[in-house]
Amino acid sequence: MIGYPNKKNLHNTIPFDNHMSRGMSLEDDLNDSNAYYRACDRALIHKKPTPIQVVKVDYPARTAAKIVEAYYKTPSTTDYNGIYKGKAIDFEAKETRSKTSFPFSSIHPHQIEHLKKVLFHGGIGFFIIRFSYYDETYLLDANFLISLYENGTKKSISYKDVKKHGSFIRRGLTPKLYYLDNVDTLYFKEDYSNGKK
Amino acid sequence: MIGYPNKKNLHNTIPFDNHMSRGMSLEDDLNDSNAYYRACDRALIHKKPTPIQVVKVDYPARTAAKIVEAYYKTPSTTDYNGIYKGKAIDFEAKETRSKTSFPFSSIHPHQIEHLKKVLFHGGIGFFIIRFSYYDETYLLDANFLISLYENGTKKSISYKDVKKHGSFIRRGLTPKLYYLDNVDTLYFKEDYSNGKK
Repeated sequence: MIGYPNKKNLHNTIPFDNHMSRGMSLEDDLNDSNAYYRACDRALIHKKPTPIQVVKVDYPARTAAKIVEAYYKTPSTTDYNGIYKGKAIDFEAKETRSKTSFPFSSIHPHQIEHLKKVLFHGGIGFFIIRFSYYDETYLLDANFLISLYENGTKKSISYKDVKKHGSFIRRGLTPKLYYLDNVDTLYFKEDYSNGKK
Repeated sequence: MIGYPNKKNLHNTIPFDNHMSRGMSLEDDLNDSNAYYRACDRALIHKKPTPIQVVKVDYPARTAAKIVEAYYKTPSTTDYNGIYKGKAIDFEAKETRSKTSFPFSSIHPHQIEHLKKVLFHGGIGFFIIRFSYYDETYLLDANFLISLYENGTKKSISYKDVKKHGSFIRRGLTPKLYYLDNVDTLYFKEDYSNGKK
């Protein structure tokens, strides 16, 4: 087992529980997984900071600058990007509470445009979608989802189609989401068990 | 000439002036250049948002959420990343007013660690350094600068050495900085005039 900064090695003492992550957000799970993947040098993937428009900053004496007026901006890119096996990787992650479908309204048009550019420039692009009701997380290829999105006849993708066309992401403790195994299967066509960990 | 969103086509009417960019920050020049490179589909490179720790948010009725207490966080990565010719690209940009040297103290240790990982995972990593006194901007390979930084005997790199070991970045109007030409020369070993624009 590889050491993992800022985490106790819980995996040695707590039995695996399929539902341990219930209640943790997809973002928490991904941040945790990316920290693990960075720590063991498998990939270099970060969540981008949330874009914030700073309007007013106070500079109290002898303390750090304090932002006192700021607003969230609409992101112009996806939330996650980095490098894996020499390739640029870029994805957006979304959760839905729906039992039946993932609504396209939760994807910003900017993010679709960005992912199209990722593919054009030779990067790997996808979506990670969690159905929190079922506690299931899937990886969907960007090309596939974008063509559905741009087809325009549907405003969502059904849970059934996500199960059918998506790649189910295995869950664990370290990492919380083994999503790079899905990336291996989909984009590197190599058996992970023979690959570089 | 390729159309350029949100910009008037000033290059047709205003004569080129070597010093037009004086007074514009390196960050402005790079944001402008990256917008141009994105618009003409040459590369997909963005500045990451500044990481901010939000402490308190107000939700005034019928208006956008207002952040009323927040602080700047130390960045754990570099400021710029993206994709160019299928490769992950990652860099940090810094200006100095010094006439004689660029001080290593202006690079966060986190950023050095991050760029080492970029290189390890097969990305292209570098620094863009501007000497604002001379109005000159250089690209320095990450491997080169990191080995100097980690050597530990010097706390800066002299202007002379930046001139000698760096790659001078040509300046224009669109883009403000032709830094991808330097990337071509250093990392793709191909003649830009024969390359894809």
